[in-house]
Amino acid sequence: MASNSEYSNLTYAEAGVDEPREQEALGTRMLPWFKRTYEFRRGIGAPMSGIGHFGNILDLGGDRGLVLATDGVGTKIFIAQHMRRYDTVGIDCIANNVNDLICLGAEPIALLDYIAINGVDEEALEGIAKGLCLGAEKAGITIPGGEIAQMPEMFSHEQGTTALDLVGTAVGLVSLGDEFDEVPRLVDGARVLPGDVIIGLASSGLHSNGYSLVRRVLLDDSRFALDEYIDRLGRTLGEELLEPTHIYVKPVLALLKKGHPIHGLVNISGGGLLNLSRLPVNCSYNIHNLPPIPPIFELIKETGRLPDAVVFAALNMGIGFCIVCPSASADILLDELQAYGETASVIGTVTGDPGGKVIIERYGLVGSGESFEAHDRLASPL
Amino acid sequence: MASNSEYSNLTYAEAGVDEPREQEALGTRMLPWFKRTYEFRRGIGAPMSGIGHFGNILDLGGDRGLVLATDGVGTKIFIAQHMRRYDTVGIDCIANNVNDLICLGAEPIALLDYIAINGVDEEALEGIAKGLCLGAEKAGITIPGGEIAQMPEMFSHEQGTTALDLVGTAVGLVSLGDEFDEVPRLVDGARVLPGDVIIGLASSGLHSNGYSLVRRVLLDDSRFALDEYIDRLGRTLGEELLEPTHIYVKPVLALLKKGHPIHGLVNISGGGLLNLSRLPVNCSYNIHNLPPIPPIFELIKETGRLPDAVVFAALNMGIGFCIVCPSASADILLDELQAYGETASVIGTVTGDPGGKVIIERYGLVGSGESFEAHDRLASPL
Repeated sequence: MASNSEYSNLTYAEAGVDEPREQEALGTRMLPWFKRTYEFRRGIGAPMSGIGHFGNILDLGGDRGLVLATDGVGTKIFIAQHMRRYDTVGIDCIANNVNDLICLGAEPIALLDYIAINGVDEEALEGIAKGLCLGAEKAGITIPGGEIAQMPEMFSHEQGTTALDLVGTAVGLVSLGDEFDEVPRLVDGARVLPGDVIIGLASSGLHSNGYSLVRRVLLDDSRFALDEYIDRLGRTLGEELLEPTHIYVKPVLALLKKGHPIHGLVNISGGGLLNLSRLPVNCSYNIHNLPPIPPIFELIKETGRLPDAVVFAALNMGIGFCIVCPSASADILLDELQAYGETASVIGTVTGDPGGKVIIERYGLVGSGESFEAHDRLASPL
Repeated sequence: MASNSEYSNLTYAEAGVDEPREQEALGTRMLPWFKRTYEFRRGIGAPMSGIGHFGNILDLGGDRGLVLATDGVGTKIFIAQHMRRYDTVGIDCIANNVNDLICLGAEPIALLDYIAINGVDEEALEGIAKGLCLGAEKAGITIPGGEIAQMPEMFSHEQGTTALDLVGTAVGLVSLGDEFDEVPRLVDGARVLPGDVIIGLASSGLHSNGYSLVRRVLLDDSRFALDEYIDRLGRTLGEELLEPTHIYVKPVLALLKKGHPIHGLVNISGGGLLNLSRLPVNCSYNIHNLPPIPPIFELIKETGRLPDAVVFAALNMGIGFCIVCPSASADILLDELQAYGETASVIGTVTGDPGGKVIIERYGLVGSGESFEAHDRLASPL
């Protein structure tokens, strides 16, 4: 990749990933074909239209729905390759999928993995399997199958090194009836109301998003080495960058199973807090009490001299998952979350403003769609 | 890849794919971790042990099971890349998964796709979506979601060209009760008996298997060009190599739904007719009436001077799917299959010989596990 010494205007596109063009191609070139497939099935197994801000629901009959999610670990895998440490990305692979499934209230049940690899590397394959197993345990799911594809010519890699891609597809079950029925009841986000509060659950770090940008900023031009100990991180950069994505399944399922009034669930993945606008209501989200930004995000922002608007639109900035609930329920939910070992706090409020805007008060950011705009840069204390 | 002018001993490993080492790593390094995950779930969604020669079954309760399959299109994607023709591999992606699901009697309902790509190529992405849509129509499924991962640095490719990987994960439903219940009843292969006949359904060509070997034999050292018209194929080599995998869902579901006595269903994918030994019975399979081998397989065998044992263990040799049934039912099944436009015939018989051997009489081949041995090479008329 070409180097670029001027980072102040770095966007995701300049990091080699053209997100807007991808969204355009998806919307205009691909979705029309995929929508046509909705005609190919009626009755059992057919998608239920109009619901599913984090995945479509397939009708299983008997008031049950099946939810599917697929996601890889993206270029975080390159960090694992460079460090020859493969026992954490499997956790990310599980997390990226199950954290999406629970946004609909679905209980994840299983995940299939797909590994494309340039040749058989026993250590790498065992490390991945171990990580998948650890992630499956955290999520309470099984791994009943998977696929390994050896494709030596597909990968760009140095002689003698291992290159691979890791992807998962997870399935979950949700109850579509009024009653709780072994599996939790659908949370479709439609009940989110102005005045509801937004509880933010701490992320464990970068999770699995923004790695093209992060590698560009921190690693290109040998700015930092992966084995470099960084004081403010309290560990090496490589260790920080391989920190597994936190899995929110067990605490969220526990809250759902206890019948607490939960109006919306949002996985803060690629796009950061802008994911709040995926909730299917015409409200806005005012983040007025964001916890301190963890050191890794500060390091990325400072090193890349990146504007707040760029980092907040690409990274989770310390919040990995959001729960929207009535304000009267916040304290009891926070107590329960704490009992599950989660670090959680009320970070914001739902407002009646239309347009699905996400406002980060302290940084003067107003976001919608895929980007933030800075409205009062001087207020930024980062 | 290094060239090699001596093809007569070419094995899959020499084509850059070390299948035995992969199986060893899977069995000793990965499966112990995956098996441990079976403890992480009880009751609804848990895998049902001991059944599933083409995938594990997850217990949905109410006598319903969920079956999952994941598979990519392998290095067939390279042919699409070289020809810049992307509207067929989507069909392969659907076929590889749904043809596995129906081996358990499961009715496929949906597939999620995953596309890793080196950058946004609108034509390629639309072609893939179109192929996926065509495949979904043939299989009677929907595509309710998917994922695009832009990873420019992952791929080895010439400047300005597109490189990608295409993978699908499909889900199907099966009835575990005694009755037919909207979805078909489980076919676990346990009823296969000595004396049963094996009906072979014609493949549409190579399907999606053996492409590392095929590309090595036909394309390395510029032996043939993809745009070369080949008389005995009646079209260019590239057109032949991109012929989509046949989808067997509709005829097989029709037979199941009519209640015909079907004892076993086998997708002839990688490993060719050796897939018959995946049936969970201690029988053998005598293929005594194999239809004429289609020209593409002859071309590969002759060009590579490959022994019968190698091509039969890697390629489908003209048979893409097998149905095992009582001999008394064969004629009526053949009539039904013909009505669905399938080319089908009785190709062999199940015998009481133990060991899951696959015998190809005309070629003097006896196979088990992953390979064939030639017992009477002189008898080979190919």
